[in-house]
Amino acid sequence: MKNTKLSVNDISQKLLAGDVVALSRAITLIESKKNTDQKLADRLLKKIVPHTGHSLRIGITGSPGVGKSTFIEAFGKHITSLGKKVAVLAIDPSSAKTKGSILGDRTRMEELSKDAKAFIRPTATGTSLGGVADKTRETILLCEAAGFEIIIVETVGVGQSETAVRNMVDFFLLLQLAGAGDELQGIKKGIMEMADAIVITKADGENEKKAKQAQTEFFQALHLFQPSTSAWQPKVLTTSALQKKGIEEVWKMIQSFQLHTAKNGFFNKNREQQKLEWFHESIQLQLKERFFKSKKEVAKMKSLEKKIVNGEMIPSKAAEEFVLSSIRKR
Amino acid sequence: MKNTKLSVNDISQKLLAGDVVALSRAITLIESKKNTDQKLADRLLKKIVPHTGHSLRIGITGSPGVGKSTFIEAFGKHITSLGKKVAVLAIDPSSAKTKGSILGDRTRMEELSKDAKAFIRPTATGTSLGGVADKTRETILLCEAAGFEIIIVETVGVGQSETAVRNMVDFFLLLQLAGAGDELQGIKKGIMEMADAIVITKADGENEKKAKQAQTEFFQALHLFQPSTSAWQPKVLTTSALQKKGIEEVWKMIQSFQLHTAKNGFFNKNREQQKLEWFHESIQLQLKERFFKSKKEVAKMKSLEKKIVNGEMIPSKAAEEFVLSSIRKR
Repeated sequence: MKNTKLSVNDISQKLLAGDVVALSRAITLIESKKNTDQKLADRLLKKIVPHTGHSLRIGITGSPGVGKSTFIEAFGKHITSLGKKVAVLAIDPSSAKTKGSILGDRTRMEELSKDAKAFIRPTATGTSLGGVADKTRETILLCEAAGFEIIIVETVGVGQSETAVRNMVDFFLLLQLAGAGDELQGIKKGIMEMADAIVITKADGENEKKAKQAQTEFFQALHLFQPSTSAWQPKVLTTSALQKKGIEEVWKMIQSFQLHTAKNGFFNKNREQQKLEWFHESIQLQLKERFFKSKKEVAKMKSLEKKIVNGEMIPSKAAEEFVLSSIRKR
Repeated sequence: MKNTKLSVNDISQKLLAGDVVALSRAITLIESKKNTDQKLADRLLKKIVPHTGHSLRIGITGSPGVGKSTFIEAFGKHITSLGKKVAVLAIDPSSAKTKGSILGDRTRMEELSKDAKAFIRPTATGTSLGGVADKTRETILLCEAAGFEIIIVETVGVGQSETAVRNMVDFFLLLQLAGAGDELQGIKKGIMEMADAIVITKADGENEKKAKQAQTEFFQALHLFQPSTSAWQPKVLTTSALQKKGIEEVWKMIQSFQLHTAKNGFFNKNREQQKLEWFHESIQLQLKERFFKSKKEVAKMKSLEKKIVNGEMIPSKAAEEFVLSSIRKR
């Protein structure tokens, strides 16, 4: 926070009044690795926590090429056209290496980024997925405090990031392309069953028929899984962001999910559980960071791993040795 | 280890010679919570580690009623009839409460338990799943040192125990019953996609036709998932333990899996990865146990959880407070 003398009080007041410049600064603050910034961020978060939790949080995932940006832009514009404020955040563990592959380029949602009711923010980079998830969760709270009513958390279909996003949102949407009759092949393990809905994109022109077929197949496939605790039957819809078709239906479906889960109590129970999971994950993360940071400890771990792989040590005993020596050192 | 003056040297010598009484004692020793026993267990494990790793480890899961005991008995008898030694272990997190619901009663595999080439041992109880898994992994090593060539780790379809077993075996088998045309309904999330094979049990009499139908459906369903890193196409077989049909085929299939994965290098790579995962899980487990055992800390955690649920604290900040205060105390 160079070049500014804004105090935590100033930032929080402006943020709570909906000022997006203050919101951006607040996010930069919580993402900062500087000790002084972190202390300010802690004070800021403490101030805004009573004003959080009132948004609807939607997770969206899909492989590259599925038309994610186009969908989110159309979907976001629909939400703002209803007079609601929407924030788009992103989790992309790979961006630590590729420097923001997912949202680095804000122009990929050109219209939405110019919308006064929309806020687009790329992912925090440079740390582990756990660290990124931690910061994204805090960013959700900041956006809520700034009056955003719909929070979209976007991710790309790599590794564990879907699970991380699933654990911080109310509704999880999987985007899929209609392929050539073979659409069920190669779905990433475990992702389909986390979805509250599958939306088949680019259902226009010659693709429309294929998309309808895929809709039926996905619907049948979703029946393979046990009903989730929300007692919500996952839906499959088709959209064309190009022709602006189906977008309204997706929004209506998500609203009916919200109504359904508010009624049966799942919505709040899920939120509560997510908070507790965040707490426990964060404890693990911080223990790890506080204990295994030093070069000496990394070297010790590597040497134990070598012994384990060579069959010289039993993993549980190596772990004991490692933990005991780490504790003794402080 | 009361009533015995056997030294660690004695036990390990007898164990390595294949003495099952010594093996039983060794397992009791590693499961013991007494400090003196744990020290003996550590020395014992250190002695036997060079003699481990040479078995084929098979995980078997299936819901109650699927005929798991009957299948394992028939399967185990087939293995011993080929002159091989088989050990059957079990993980059942629920048994901590129900006092051994899964294998407490050895009579449920009456024939196999009388077989000189077979060894049956119930799960270690009374701890967390992580703790149980830790001990089961060590027990696998003890059985290997005692010359058992096939290790079966059995679990019941509850919660996270399947994942724990999947992570400690080479081959994972899911047992399923043929139902009434609706067999794909209600499969536990994530279990099917961990399976290297599905075996449909009780495929005899009137059930035979249904079982064949189910076989086709399961096979199609397995195609929904991405091929695993083993490049092994999961198989679906039918068996009748009653009529002793299909058991030999299951064994042959598992052998062809072993050949396939030995050739492409997956078998050893998977073993290596499992060892490292065990190491890292064990570190987490031990950190947790060493840090969060005291009544004071449990109370502190409960009070923070309450504040989190009430929206008074942000989970990541509560975690920080908790970890810092725990570290300072020692």
